[in-house]
Amino acid sequence: MAGKIDAKLAELGITLPTPMAPIANYVPFVITGNLVVISGQVPAVDGKIVLTGKVGPGGLSIEQGQAQARQCFINLLTHLKNACGGDLDRVEQVIRLGGFIAAPAEFSQHAQVMNGASDLAVAVFGDAGRHARTTVGVPSLPADVPVEVEGMFRIA
Amino acid sequence: MAGKIDAKLAELGITLPTPMAPIANYVPFVITGNLVVISGQVPAVDGKIVLTGKVGPGGLSIEQGQAQARQCFINLLTHLKNACGGDLDRVEQVIRLGGFIAAPAEFSQHAQVMNGASDLAVAVFGDAGRHARTTVGVPSLPADVPVEVEGMFRIA
Amino acid sequence: MAGKIDAKLAELGITLPTPMAPIANYVPFVITGNLVVISGQVPAVDGKIVLTGKVGPGGLSIEQGQAQARQCFINLLTHLKNACGGDLDRVEQVIRLGGFIAAPAEFSQHAQVMNGASDLAVAVFGDAGRHARTTVGVPSLPADVPVEVEGMFRIA
Repeated sequence: MAGKIDAKLAELGITLPTPMAPIANYVPFVITGNLVVISGQVPAVDGKIVLTGKVGPGGLSIEQGQAQARQCFINLLTHLKNACGGDLDRVEQVIRLGGFIAAPAEFSQHAQVMNGASDLAVAVFGDAGRHARTTVGVPSLPADVPVEVEGMFRIA
Repeated sequence: MAGKIDAKLAELGITLPTPMAPIANYVPFVITGNLVVISGQVPAVDGKIVLTGKVGPGGLSIEQGQAQARQCFINLLTHLKNACGGDLDRVEQVIRLGGFIAAPAEFSQHAQVMNGASDLAVAVFGDAGRHARTTVGVPSLPADVPVEVEGMFRIA
Repeated sequence: MAGKIDAKLAELGITLPTPMAPIANYVPFVITGNLVVISGQVPAVDGKIVLTGKVGPGGLSIEQGQAQARQCFINLLTHLKNACGGDLDRVEQVIRLGGFIAAPAEFSQHAQVMNGASDLAVAVFGDAGRHARTTVGVPSLPADVPVEVEGMFRIA
């Protein structure tokens, strides 16, 4: 019996992958009180990096960057669902997203790229998806991915 | 009837602008429990970017960077006041500031730049303004601003 | 009478330095509720920077970067112990580590570098040391250090 958020994901055509087992001494998420703190997610699809490089002049387009930011949020959702014991309807609030955009010094459209994650947050959770956000550029990210997004959530 | 913190701001010659309405699917702040998590602020003045570029050799001076960091904290205060329903005397603690300084690889004086925000925090809130802080360099920031500062606060 | 965690540190050959007094308007840590938020730590040894530069091609090796990340975690522990009134056995959970690796645009092994901090967290705290983590590249860090790590912890 799927919940409301699962139904919304299906409506958006989003299937959450099985979360990967942790491969290091850090874990995908930590629950403390009613907070879920989720590790920075790269835009892997089913555990595979599909696009590398930087966003901006001579590199990936804004639209490509947005799609990568959106995929980072899907990966956050995968771990969030696990943190909720499978029931995403327990999510009360997307508190904060932190977005890191790999880009050169002359890039200035980080906010547009990060909207790929923010827009999906609101599409999935409605008003509870409206979050505080910090977006910055970085010269490089793990595995040469173009975007990384971390998140903090409140659950019931 | 202005509060103690409002009086302190007046004494410092600081007028908080009217907070801008959110223009995207993220919001200026989220309150969770007694925590206020505020989005990364750029050093806009009354909603307008007044200075762009990088801090350091060939770019903005340390003093210019400090003034920009200070303006970021003023913008944090604007949203914090809104989060407090207008009463900044409800602020119990500045918990954490995160500072991002747009600068080239050879720059090393990030801490001095960020003091523009930290010094104002203590000027306004006294001991309650002493905060944990993380300051790093970045190659670029949204809208080509030189400094971005995010914050977490505890309110009564 | 040393606690369990102090004994583990001794077993690992780690001596925590005396925490330095704060030298600015920010402080090493803030306690809020049962959370300890610790400022971004540079890999100073007894308060002295021992290595500067970037990690990656033409700079420091992965192994050097890992050692620096490990030192950042030792410095986090120093402040954490202070936050616990000297009793590290009060630490219930390493919630989150944020790692910033100074590296050029072509660098991609940030995760390996950050393992220097993550591995020590688990060596010291066991399962309670498994944490959420965000690791990114940056062009430059304060005082030209190669790694900076911030942390959030839950204490009893």
